[in-house]
Amino acid sequence: MKLGSLKKSTSKDGELCVVSRDLKTAVRASHIAPSLREALESWKDKEPALSKLSEELNQGLAANSFLVREEDFHSALPRTWLFADGSAFIYHIKLVRKARNAPLPETLETVPLMYQGEAGQFLDPRQDIPQRDFAHGTDFEGEVGVVTDNVPMGVSPEEALQYIRLFVLINDVSLRGLIPEELAQGFGFFQSKPASALSPFAVTADELGSAWRGGRVHLPLQVQYNGSFFGKADAGAMHFHFGQLIAHAAKTRNLAAGSIIGSGTVSNENHEMGSSCLAEKRMIEQVEQGGIKTPFMKSGDTIEIQMLNEKGQNIFGRIFQKVKSA
Amino acid sequence: MKLGSLKKSTSKDGELCVVSRDLKTAVRASHIAPSLREALESWKDKEPALSKLSEELNQGLAANSFLVREEDFHSALPRTWLFADGSAFIYHIKLVRKARNAPLPETLETVPLMYQGEAGQFLDPRQDIPQRDFAHGTDFEGEVGVVTDNVPMGVSPEEALQYIRLFVLINDVSLRGLIPEELAQGFGFFQSKPASALSPFAVTADELGSAWRGGRVHLPLQVQYNGSFFGKADAGAMHFHFGQLIAHAAKTRNLAAGSIIGSGTVSNENHEMGSSCLAEKRMIEQVEQGGIKTPFMKSGDTIEIQMLNEKGQNIFGRIFQKVKSA
Repeated sequence: MKLGSLKKSTSKDGELCVVSRDLKTAVRASHIAPSLREALESWKDKEPALSKLSEELNQGLAANSFLVREEDFHSALPRTWLFADGSAFIYHIKLVRKARNAPLPETLETVPLMYQGEAGQFLDPRQDIPQRDFAHGTDFEGEVGVVTDNVPMGVSPEEALQYIRLFVLINDVSLRGLIPEELAQGFGFFQSKPASALSPFAVTADELGSAWRGGRVHLPLQVQYNGSFFGKADAGAMHFHFGQLIAHAAKTRNLAAGSIIGSGTVSNENHEMGSSCLAEKRMIEQVEQGGIKTPFMKSGDTIEIQMLNEKGQNIFGRIFQKVKSA
Repeated sequence: MKLGSLKKSTSKDGELCVVSRDLKTAVRASHIAPSLREALESWKDKEPALSKLSEELNQGLAANSFLVREEDFHSALPRTWLFADGSAFIYHIKLVRKARNAPLPETLETVPLMYQGEAGQFLDPRQDIPQRDFAHGTDFEGEVGVVTDNVPMGVSPEEALQYIRLFVLINDVSLRGLIPEELAQGFGFFQSKPASALSPFAVTADELGSAWRGGRVHLPLQVQYNGSFFGKADAGAMHFHFGQLIAHAAKTRNLAAGSIIGSGTVSNENHEMGSSCLAEKRMIEQVEQGGIKTPFMKSGDTIEIQMLNEKGQNIFGRIFQKVKSA
């Protein structure tokens, strides 16, 4: 099943829609739940009716279906209660820390890094990334995320996998120029992690088929920067799987239904796979070519993030954003 | 005007109520807006009707008013989109860093410390604080918070004051035992900052009278620990005022209506005023008596936080919580 949130002037949550597997048609589902946020809060009650509508839509039998225009859709979940972003690709941590001349955490391979990001208002998947100051070092980060049901505090990593309801892609916007000061202060990322964008569509595990195994999504994340190839790193290369990230987030708190847990920037050791953020490419340039060539994003630069299944079909729709001076 | 959220089995947002100035009577206001969260999202439209109802209630003229039982009320805003907690009392930072043998940030007096806390599900003001492990070092932190309207990115500190709609008290639950590892990792507080509780009632600035000036609430925060005096520190002693904290939070993002900005633990240099958290008392014991006497919270320990106006009248109702093994 694929779900989306049609933009709606009267609600910041948008209007819940079921979207066909091929992303070509959709049907409003607000008679089942007004919004995806609310559907997730009563998932057990709402899922059967949504699933039935999805089947009808995919068979061409749903009444009042309409052609999808991705620009009419908000981030799949326009706002929610928690965005806990992990950093499950250890190779990314190694490169970025090297770039910052920062030491590696002692618990690098045993305890996930995680920060709490802005969840209360995601950017649209096609909304401009506002840039107040070029010196802030605007960067994108292509990620995979899971959306959970209510998760009880203290859940084990294996149990945690059972609470995953949906998958999304994330462009975790990062302001690299603000990170060193926030790290030095010790309270973690805040100004350096402004609003991110999600993919227009969120999907259930069955839409990923055999690519979803071992708590990881084993598909490449397609990243295009200014219209050119930038990365196709395997999202399955996570050191920590999503169950471990959820368990980390839920160690001392219950997670509310609709919580999004991010994978961190998708990153592979094989540099032929490219990268999913500029910081990593810059560090690779420094190591391999003796100097940084790629600047951070400036007004007009565009970033596209999507994921195709084994048959080459788009799973989540496209994140396509442009940087704009604010 | 004073507002509260009556607990309601069918909504995690609770039901919006107007509460009398003396906290004795209340009246449902869900015909104006279903919940305080939703009222804040259309504040300009909703405020006049709420204000009128408040006047009627305070004059004893509101139909269907009822006697307040605080235990029927949730945290004033049971869940919201952002909890950005500052640390505006520099004396607290100095003491706590000393306790951790951590250096002071170079920008201590010029840039506020701020982390993003759990906003998606606050504890009730009387709900037990769950403790999974005594070694986590459970602590309370008594704070004042402001609730904002939509705030535009890049707002100045002085302009920011205009976006404050309501005031609350906060018990920012902190797990001191988990802080050193999270600081070492560099991603900031996450597991060490579980769900907090708000006061049962949120109030507009006029309820604070002349105590609200210069972006600070100049009243003592009354803290009782296990039924005994623990603190009455002046909440007006903030180094950074609330406009500065809001501007810091909004430097690279818009803030959604309903965002809560916390003051950080209320703390005064005069030790006769007591403290608003155990960490501070412990550090003072170490400095003044050569050793820590007060343990962190254990099952059964109780914390009460409230604020009285110049006439001795309770402003926000009581936060009264007990630690319980989870």
